[in-house]
Amino acid sequence: MQNALIEAQRIFDVAPFIADLGCKLEKLESGICHASIELTEKHQQQDGFVHAGVQATLADHCAGTAAVTLIDDHQMVLTAEFKINLLRAAKGERLLCKSAVLKAGRVLTVAESEVFAEDENKKQRLVAKATVTLAVMDKPKVEGQ
Amino acid sequence: MQNALIEAQRIFDVAPFIADLGCKLEKLESGICHASIELTEKHQQQDGFVHAGVQATLADHCAGTAAVTLIDDHQMVLTAEFKINLLRAAKGERLLCKSAVLKAGRVLTVAESEVFAEDENKKQRLVAKATVTLAVMDKPKVEGQ
Amino acid sequence: MQNALIEAQRIFDVAPFIADLGCKLEKLESGICHASIELTEKHQQQDGFVHAGVQATLADHCAGTAAVTLIDDHQMVLTAEFKINLLRAAKGERLLCKSAVLKAGRVLTVAESEVFAEDENKKQRLVAKATVTLAVMDKPKVEGQ
Amino acid sequence: MQNALIEAQRIFDVAPFIADLGCKLEKLESGICHASIELTEKHQQQDGFVHAGVQATLADHCAGTAAVTLIDDHQMVLTAEFKINLLRAAKGERLLCKSAVLKAGRVLTVAESEVFAEDENKKQRLVAKATVTLAVMDKPKVEGQ
Repeated sequence: MQNALIEAQRIFDVAPFIADLGCKLEKLESGICHASIELTEKHQQQDGFVHAGVQATLADHCAGTAAVTLIDDHQMVLTAEFKINLLRAAKGERLLCKSAVLKAGRVLTVAESEVFAEDENKKQRLVAKATVTLAVMDKPKVEGQ
Repeated sequence: MQNALIEAQRIFDVAPFIADLGCKLEKLESGICHASIELTEKHQQQDGFVHAGVQATLADHCAGTAAVTLIDDHQMVLTAEFKINLLRAAKGERLLCKSAVLKAGRVLTVAESEVFAEDENKKQRLVAKATVTLAVMDKPKVEGQ
Repeated sequence: MQNALIEAQRIFDVAPFIADLGCKLEKLESGICHASIELTEKHQQQDGFVHAGVQATLADHCAGTAAVTLIDDHQMVLTAEFKINLLRAAKGERLLCKSAVLKAGRVLTVAESEVFAEDENKKQRLVAKATVTLAVMDKPKVEGQ
Repeated sequence: MQNALIEAQRIFDVAPFIADLGCKLEKLESGICHASIELTEKHQQQDGFVHAGVQATLADHCAGTAAVTLIDDHQMVLTAEFKINLLRAAKGERLLCKSAVLKAGRVLTVAESEVFAEDENKKQRLVAKATVTLAVMDKPKVEGQ
């Protein structure tokens, strides 16, 4: 778990798309990850709401990080598939995602992500819910890549 | 369809997240939309592959635009949910998405998106497949917003 | 809600496939439905486990009934789509499903179903989790059908 | 493939729920499976349409059988998850499912199923589309079970 913490933080730091979106790791425990995005105009679709793709990216990445807390040092995870329901048009100051592992398996881990939009009064509203299936695999050996 | 073409182009032009990602409208016909992204380092996850969130955003947005070609002028679409399977680790010069409407309904439209990664020799490989459910609704009246 | 209770019970009584499967309504509250199936050999796939289709049917039907508790008398729901993760091979004496509405909307309602397998000691294990999107619509007028 | 054919036929013959539903294997090729159900009142939900659970069972089972055609003799597949869109209320004489493998992998295979309702004039209409993710695994050794 100590190593997983370092690995999870590393993923947030070195993944260019995550850095570009402004995703910030908020909390990390065994099987749990919270992350957030400070919303700007850049995250919007054509009508001023947060783009579904932003919510999906946060939900997927946060679920993957929750899965990483439960794997061995020589392993990695890759998203095999996910499904997301956009429950309400999302608007606000901040997007917060809470992911938890539902089932950690030898080859597949399933995690769920709840995405909340937070307004200027820190009031949170559930705007999306995702289920993410991750493939657990051995990291490629550096020489073998 | 003439208006739909203008509306679809508008969505690509004015959606900040789509512009930020570098999504480009490639083709638009009745029930069909193709779009692409020139890949840069910014689109990557921690291991150098295209982030699932980039693929999901392209698949969702392109499916929504395909749906827009089949609605009336006073209507709009919003993604209700989507599911995406990431079939292979995606790498290459360009991401190309081909979306087609499977069923256009009065309140729900279902579209499918195939995402291809194109290498330097223009060889394309299917890297993801998504099914997108869109809610068709009347545009809010400007005064009533 | 009183009418919804009657309608929900009616759906379990008159839906032939549900009766054939042995689905039993266990609990009904506003936005919530629990249902069960006493498992027999008939519910199995080729290796002696409960068929994914049985779990999916229970998850879908129970979610739909939870949605019915929140609609008006002149409305009905139809499943637009669902996604189910089969978390563990399911075996036991009884299958129990707990469904709850995540978001009730004017045209779309989203509900979640957790399916548990119960062994001979009444110990329950989560075997599947589903997200169900339901279209809410007006019942067809009898003459207009 | 010869063994896969025998194995696929066996799955249809010995899976009690599939026999109970009246599922019939129609066609089997490398990566492809077609199957059908003669519709009776038993397959209906409360309003006389084919229950979503029947369509889901057929879509899942037929996809799994398509996957079986591409695995080794010592392997088996189990559905990890599936998602199905119910496109139209289904009614008719026969349900026909056409499944094809989209990507066959070492640990995961993804297949798609199209479900058609056939009326008394043999006219077919697409009523559902599913994406099925299957885990490929070694069969348990008989002694080791």
